[in-house]
Amino acid sequence: MSTDPKFEFLCRMGDNALVLGHRVSEWCGVAPVLEEDIALANVALDLIGQTQLWLSLAGEVEGAERDADKLAFHRDVWDFRNVLLVEQPNGDFGQTMMRQFLFDAWHLAQLTALIDSSDKEIAAIAEKSAKEVTYHLERSSDTVIGLGDGTEESHRRMQAALDLLWPYVGEMFIGDEVDAAMVAAGIAPDPASLRAGYDQLVGDTLAAATLTKPEDDFAHKGGKSGARHSEHLGHMLTQMQWLQRAYPDATW
Amino acid sequence: MSTDPKFEFLCRMGDNALVLGHRVSEWCGVAPVLEEDIALANVALDLIGQTQLWLSLAGEVEGAERDADKLAFHRDVWDFRNVLLVEQPNGDFGQTMMRQFLFDAWHLAQLTALIDSSDKEIAAIAEKSAKEVTYHLERSSDTVIGLGDGTEESHRRMQAALDLLWPYVGEMFIGDEVDAAMVAAGIAPDPASLRAGYDQLVGDTLAAATLTKPEDDFAHKGGKSGARHSEHLGHMLTQMQWLQRAYPDATW
Repeated sequence: MSTDPKFEFLCRMGDNALVLGHRVSEWCGVAPVLEEDIALANVALDLIGQTQLWLSLAGEVEGAERDADKLAFHRDVWDFRNVLLVEQPNGDFGQTMMRQFLFDAWHLAQLTALIDSSDKEIAAIAEKSAKEVTYHLERSSDTVIGLGDGTEESHRRMQAALDLLWPYVGEMFIGDEVDAAMVAAGIAPDPASLRAGYDQLVGDTLAAATLTKPEDDFAHKGGKSGARHSEHLGHMLTQMQWLQRAYPDATW
Repeated sequence: MSTDPKFEFLCRMGDNALVLGHRVSEWCGVAPVLEEDIALANVALDLIGQTQLWLSLAGEVEGAERDADKLAFHRDVWDFRNVLLVEQPNGDFGQTMMRQFLFDAWHLAQLTALIDSSDKEIAAIAEKSAKEVTYHLERSSDTVIGLGDGTEESHRRMQAALDLLWPYVGEMFIGDEVDAAMVAAGIAPDPASLRAGYDQLVGDTLAAATLTKPEDDFAHKGGKSGARHSEHLGHMLTQMQWLQRAYPDATW
């Protein structure tokens, strides 16, 4: 395992996009209505495209001849660096969209800050990604509002999704030595600095959705450091990595 | 792929035990009560033990240096020869026990016939296995009766399980050229010859369970020939084969 903080940081960005992208792709062909099915597939494709950029750069920085495919499909669960939020199961459509909204709001803030990164390659990936994620956030926040302030049943489900997922929000704002090194190098923002803006945006959206933000701010952590993933990630990887594991030399 | 009918036949016996054994093992630690959890784990262990015997013999017959582990963990979905019934998902506890009962009743009849096989190795495996499966059938039929003739809720669930799984019963009794070769060699019985006894036993048990056997005898097929498995098997294999796929040289 590399101890280069820049490699770690790039894996975090790439793994968030990869794991959420794969999760969202699980909806392909089974979403509740056709337009949502296509929209979810588009979001998944955006995220997988971003993964390609982040993990390719991570591989270059590492210098160990691992490209994006190698990093995506040949690392085991303990080497993944995504936050726990994105590996949580899809649940129903409302739960998927709540997870998306809670991530998108952080994701756009992070990417917007990275556009000013001292690292030009990171800034370029962030600029491209931010355009896509602006749309993701617009769509997920609209859906959260529509379903939260919808029928009694949809409101109940969205509140349940929020209660379930809220304990995974805090991890996105907890900094560690990798983040400190990125801040010192002018590469990335301090995670804690994004919290106030996030709380404002999420608070406004949840209010419009007539949903109640949980009072307990307890946060599960261990995903972005790789110390402790939830059991869901390993199961997801068995399916995501199946082809490259069964046919290691497969190419198009 | 081998075209030796004896190899095919042994894979069918082994894959039935392997796939059902893995499915049942999925209950480990999450069954509704502790005693059932232990009992299910014991059934799974019996089946995996039988798998070891069948697939080891299959590997010897094939003569291509594939042992039981290689056959279990390094074949892809299209090379599996289990009947579709055993790869169906667990569902609730009642559905798992209905699947078990419908399989056990066939399995014991098949093994009992194989005790008289002209092939001494097959006869020996059958004799050992039949003792275990006698207990499996006793337990699964008792459970089907207990839950079928139980509460309104348990009766409803068992009837739903029977309706869901019945279309997978017929495949166990449909013969093909592999079966014909086994019959000609005195190795195994004609599958169709087991049907009358099965219908008698299953009919009696379902009657005692106050459950209604579906009238439609439509049968899905394609599992034992390998022509068409349900989507469930591939997903199961990604998890079952994960370790050997990710670490091909792993040993104890």
